[in-house]
Amino acid sequence: MSYELVIIGGGPAGLSAGIYASRLGLKTIILEKGVAGGLISEAPLVENYPGFPAVNGMKLAEKLREHAIKNVEIAEFEPVRKIERNKDFKVYTDNKCITCKAVILATGTRKRKLGVPGEKELKGKGVSYCAVCDGPFFKGCRVAVVGGGNSAALEALYLAEIGCKVVLIHRRKQLRAEKILQDRLKEKGVKLLVPAVITEIIGRNSVEAVKINKLDLNVEEKVDVEAVFIAIGEDPNSELASEIGVKTDSRGYVIVDRTQRTNIERFYAAGDVTGGFRQVVTACAEGAIAAFSAYEDIKQPYWRSTT
Amino acid sequence: MSYELVIIGGGPAGLSAGIYASRLGLKTIILEKGVAGGLISEAPLVENYPGFPAVNGMKLAEKLREHAIKNVEIAEFEPVRKIERNKDFKVYTDNKCITCKAVILATGTRKRKLGVPGEKELKGKGVSYCAVCDGPFFKGCRVAVVGGGNSAALEALYLAEIGCKVVLIHRRKQLRAEKILQDRLKEKGVKLLVPAVITEIIGRNSVEAVKINKLDLNVEEKVDVEAVFIAIGEDPNSELASEIGVKTDSRGYVIVDRTQRTNIERFYAAGDVTGGFRQVVTACAEGAIAAFSAYEDIKQPYWRSTT
Repeated sequence: MSYELVIIGGGPAGLSAGIYASRLGLKTIILEKGVAGGLISEAPLVENYPGFPAVNGMKLAEKLREHAIKNVEIAEFEPVRKIERNKDFKVYTDNKCITCKAVILATGTRKRKLGVPGEKELKGKGVSYCAVCDGPFFKGCRVAVVGGGNSAALEALYLAEIGCKVVLIHRRKQLRAEKILQDRLKEKGVKLLVPAVITEIIGRNSVEAVKINKLDLNVEEKVDVEAVFIAIGEDPNSELASEIGVKTDSRGYVIVDRTQRTNIERFYAAGDVTGGFRQVVTACAEGAIAAFSAYEDIKQPYWRSTT
Repeated sequence: MSYELVIIGGGPAGLSAGIYASRLGLKTIILEKGVAGGLISEAPLVENYPGFPAVNGMKLAEKLREHAIKNVEIAEFEPVRKIERNKDFKVYTDNKCITCKAVILATGTRKRKLGVPGEKELKGKGVSYCAVCDGPFFKGCRVAVVGGGNSAALEALYLAEIGCKVVLIHRRKQLRAEKILQDRLKEKGVKLLVPAVITEIIGRNSVEAVKINKLDLNVEEKVDVEAVFIAIGEDPNSELASEIGVKTDSRGYVIVDRTQRTNIERFYAAGDVTGGFRQVVTACAEGAIAAFSAYEDIKQPYWRSTT
């Protein structure tokens, strides 16, 4: 199979890149390991993607996916295993080998693990990385959310709203979440446990408690909960790129310039895998710009953007 | 009156900046010279703002405006006349003086003029800079569209669809518009006159014809049309900024870094006034990032973005 452009990843950045690339006339395919839409589909509520005052993440992901499907070919359940680079690129999935002139990496991030005893053992038994997916099992229960950013705050609010008793544990005294969300946490009676870190997740067949260290007092304490939702950030899925020599920063995020070009010719990156502001709207913008850069480099028209 | 942040301009960049800034807890006002929404409201059709497969520009502008109104104070019909900078900023409208700690300039661009005889004299009498606004007066008529980008192509298509006989005049042999739009121009029977420039617009009480120069042959010719729609690009509304020492490039676009900061402390710019890719989605992304930079600089929290 041969395309002009392969986009790896079908989240907001990849879908937006696909819309723009196809409309620019590039023969394009998006390869997505699962269902297109991206991690945003796990967000309980999105209020800051301009044009949608309040939408749940799943719905927004569907809107983006539908928009892309109208414009570009998407292959779902096609995880990419390897990229080879010669004059052109070869992109391998389990049963496809696609030759292409250019690649946009839009593989996003994966949820970070706490790395404490009990986390691995109790995953799916009360330890979760997605409140929307697993929250409903814990209505009426005491649950802990770990983290201090918007994601953690939104997950805590979502859980409170469906009837969980929520304690939010964060290692710093101050949350990083938007003020409007912090105000709502108060309103909804979410209890803050800060600054504190979880040192162990306790339970035999399912989560029973977390052991925490209250950092300001250096006191250990046990908090009874039936679930722990971990929202402490993400790590970039950049391995496919670094294997062919694409430069990343110390945390593994792909280094791009303002046109989303990497150090490798005709290899671009967009969205969360490049770090930065990590919003749906910035991911979409980066995808659009990456598509345009690919268009410039493949078609080499007489003009160049001024981006 | 005193705010933490004043956003000048209520197009996509300004509205998005307002949404983000307010949600971050900054006391914010958007000052808009007319009705919020921006130049996009003049676009006949938008198919590349992710999440909206096909929407007319007016409708998209309204969606963005409604979203912003839910989050942030907007003062419409408040053109800004002057900015003063001391320790803080003073922003003057006709009857307000607002003191603020930070300013985001999101004033966009204005339509470029052709600069040929007859243009000024026949403005509003067949010479137009907005097909959506004025096209319906010319159903069934022969009209010219000038330009080669997406805007020109979309205006030509819109005019063809409402029943005009359209000739598209562009100074280069190849259009810059997306391929998908060029294909549609063919389908719709839009006649291309390229490479050619208009040297004069002729008419007594209204447009009667345009005089063109066919550049490849260097031949003058008269083309009878009843209207001329000019879509040859824009110039940035950056005068307010350059008056207080904000750096612009040779074409007048405000120079910003990746965080939308300018050379003046606590003065940011976002959207079309900074040049670049000039799409709704990139304007929104830049607005969001500018708001976040303002938040960092005003609130100086213990953490800084990695953008």
